[in-house]
Amino acid sequence: MSNGELVPSGVSNDNKEISLGMNVHVMCYDVTEPHVDDEDSGDKEASMASILARYRKTMVQRSHHHLGFPVNQDLDYGALTQLQDFCINNLGDPFIESNYGVHSREFEIGVLDWFANLWEIEKSDYWGYITSCGTEGNLHGILVGREVHPNGILYTSRESHYSVFKAARMYRMKCVEVDTLITGEIDCVDFKAGLLANKDKPAIINVNIGTTVKGAIDDLDLVIKTLEECGFLPDRFYIHCDGALFGIMMPFVKCASKITFKKPIGSVSVSGYKFVGCPMPCGVQITRMEHINTLSRNVEYLASRDSTIMGSRNGHAPIFLWYSLNRKGYKGLQKEVETCIRNAHYLKDQLVDNGISAMLNELSSTVVFERPLDVNFVRRWQLACERNMAHVIVMPNVTIGKLDDFLKELVKKRKDWYKDGDVPPPCLASDIGSKNCLCPFHK
Amino acid sequence: MSNGELVPSGVSNDNKEISLGMNVHVMCYDVTEPHVDDEDSGDKEASMASILARYRKTMVQRSHHHLGFPVNQDLDYGALTQLQDFCINNLGDPFIESNYGVHSREFEIGVLDWFANLWEIEKSDYWGYITSCGTEGNLHGILVGREVHPNGILYTSRESHYSVFKAARMYRMKCVEVDTLITGEIDCVDFKAGLLANKDKPAIINVNIGTTVKGAIDDLDLVIKTLEECGFLPDRFYIHCDGALFGIMMPFVKCASKITFKKPIGSVSVSGYKFVGCPMPCGVQITRMEHINTLSRNVEYLASRDSTIMGSRNGHAPIFLWYSLNRKGYKGLQKEVETCIRNAHYLKDQLVDNGISAMLNELSSTVVFERPLDVNFVRRWQLACERNMAHVIVMPNVTIGKLDDFLKELVKKRKDWYKDGDVPPPCLASDIGSKNCLCPFHK
Repeated sequence: MSNGELVPSGVSNDNKEISLGMNVHVMCYDVTEPHVDDEDSGDKEASMASILARYRKTMVQRSHHHLGFPVNQDLDYGALTQLQDFCINNLGDPFIESNYGVHSREFEIGVLDWFANLWEIEKSDYWGYITSCGTEGNLHGILVGREVHPNGILYTSRESHYSVFKAARMYRMKCVEVDTLITGEIDCVDFKAGLLANKDKPAIINVNIGTTVKGAIDDLDLVIKTLEECGFLPDRFYIHCDGALFGIMMPFVKCASKITFKKPIGSVSVSGYKFVGCPMPCGVQITRMEHINTLSRNVEYLASRDSTIMGSRNGHAPIFLWYSLNRKGYKGLQKEVETCIRNAHYLKDQLVDNGISAMLNELSSTVVFERPLDVNFVRRWQLACERNMAHVIVMPNVTIGKLDDFLKELVKKRKDWYKDGDVPPPCLASDIGSKNCLCPFHK
Repeated sequence: MSNGELVPSGVSNDNKEISLGMNVHVMCYDVTEPHVDDEDSGDKEASMASILARYRKTMVQRSHHHLGFPVNQDLDYGALTQLQDFCINNLGDPFIESNYGVHSREFEIGVLDWFANLWEIEKSDYWGYITSCGTEGNLHGILVGREVHPNGILYTSRESHYSVFKAARMYRMKCVEVDTLITGEIDCVDFKAGLLANKDKPAIINVNIGTTVKGAIDDLDLVIKTLEECGFLPDRFYIHCDGALFGIMMPFVKCASKITFKKPIGSVSVSGYKFVGCPMPCGVQITRMEHINTLSRNVEYLASRDSTIMGSRNGHAPIFLWYSLNRKGYKGLQKEVETCIRNAHYLKDQLVDNGISAMLNELSSTVVFERPLDVNFVRRWQLACERNMAHVIVMPNVTIGKLDDFLKELVKKRKDWYKDGDVPPPCLASDIGSKNCLCPFHK
């Protein structure tokens, strides 16, 4: 099943191989050579305009039916179209002006300062940059960790984002995959065992501030305590926090295990397009100034330092983030976070009331529930699935009205799927615990 | 001199430390919290609008005075502003439709097919994706090489882009830095010596199709011949071509050492924003289908494969490239390439006629010349400098008129700089050869 349609796991993919989406090579828009008379006839411009208009229509529809991925689709960036025709490139280090003048460093650093303040680190003590996506933040954070501790071992929970395991492979680091609790959080008992088995090597730890599938938040304080208990002093470990989606939401909810540079962490990254909303993938990476010198190399050609993963960097993304953060402010974001968490609770309660297995971690807006049987339903609502689970991530643009539409359709479809009793609804006990499972056996 | 102003090397930075640009933390645009009455007063919107308008003005000016970096600033993408408010993300593998529906894979694959055709590889035999910049292409190509030959040694000329050395460090690969000829091309005599000293290990070779500073094109045929002479069969080497800027120009000039997948190469990458022109950094990476399976890992959550470096990928860039390539076609690009090379010759001849040391490699549009003494002049024209060299890269938006303005200003300034004879014009003999050097000693 390495090709062809995505099939729910309850049905037929009982082997280890996972189901992939459709191969899209058949339905692409070709690049074709202009005809000699195109400029006069306008035929080519017309055909391109029609492709683009149709595409725009599809985007409107798809953005509406969109529940499974953490992307805020509520964008209003009209004021920035005036900048579209400039190739803005923040080459190299954000804090050093290179000879390439068409950049947006003034905006980038404004945004970085805002995040540094959020995570409580002084302007003079931090270094950071705006990345091209969440993965780049993790690649950077883990690389900094490895350069600080060249023979360190990477510890990360098995529910971490795939980019963390990719980093370990890319960087040729030994990686210890730590067990998780049923919530999806890192299991610090297993973490302790791993540390004690490798006491002679420094530890590089990836802490998930919201896992991909369950939105679980690793307990940072417990991770630090475990390190201490195993005799790891701060100079023998490096903690990277993969803030993905929740790294920016967490500061706005009351929470014991706060992310702050007042604790012995090395770096934090978040995705910029997820909660804040931005037309292109981007992220924010903040680390301590003392670490960046270990990593970087001066590049005379740029009159800058090679301190980022990508050398050329999208200069529009910082302006979008600057614009959005300025308009919302801390207060606006706090309001949005509260609404998301409230709506997530609403969805979870409604699912359970309708007899559908579901789980919602405290402080999270990711509702995990029974994987829908029909692949078309999964596609229509753009749900992300793993094993017997699907999830909805309640983002600022996901309203109660949209959730009600979704619930109504799901409840109606389920009646069809399970009416004969041939196929029972899947059991989620091993995924979300038997107390959250409402399958025929555990109900 | 690790901070503060950029200073020409002839003046005071005779130590190894290079001169970096200005620290820009002082002049950033802050993100500030909205006031309670902002919505009524409109004060905040007004202040943001004024910042953006002023910034736009600066961008217009800087785009005009821009000669040192390979970026086509001649953009006209009005038809695409309608898509700005969508977060378009080509998550994961371009050829497998993930559950995230707001993507532009149809455009991406159209563009990839166009490049596959340019470099002569069948649709069914290639795999590729649109990257976030040239560096990502190199990181991907070299990683594929390493996964194909896990104990391979990386060979690359010392004038290669800094991202190649970064890759070696990131991936923990042994890297042999090969000497260059005065043109900047790889020295295959030294390459041969390196190969013979490491005959027991497979070879991963980065071939520069246009070096960063001199625009020198490594002789691909000679590289392959050298490998053969040293007894390396195709199953014991992997060639990545760093096409940066010239990878897309080369097919349009008559040239012996053509880039084509009919030769035993593993991958080619180019920058998309450089010659084609695009508002954001982006690139194209093409490799052989057989290699990608070695690299990738299935990610159930996405219903896709983790075959790229970045998981989330800018979905706007492919649409910009699709739009531009469709309008220009092979013919349009050919015309632009010819103009660039003609204008580069014009500039080089004018420099020499005015007694200024200069070099232009055959088939290149990068004119290397004497580094200007005044840092403000370097800044104003956004020249990239290294040792005693500066360069102008003649791109489609660099007209004869713009070159004349530049020449006139340079000639006038030089009279001032060198009038007293206290400081002579720098000697470029070791950089571009004594026959191209017009310093007082070599003239």
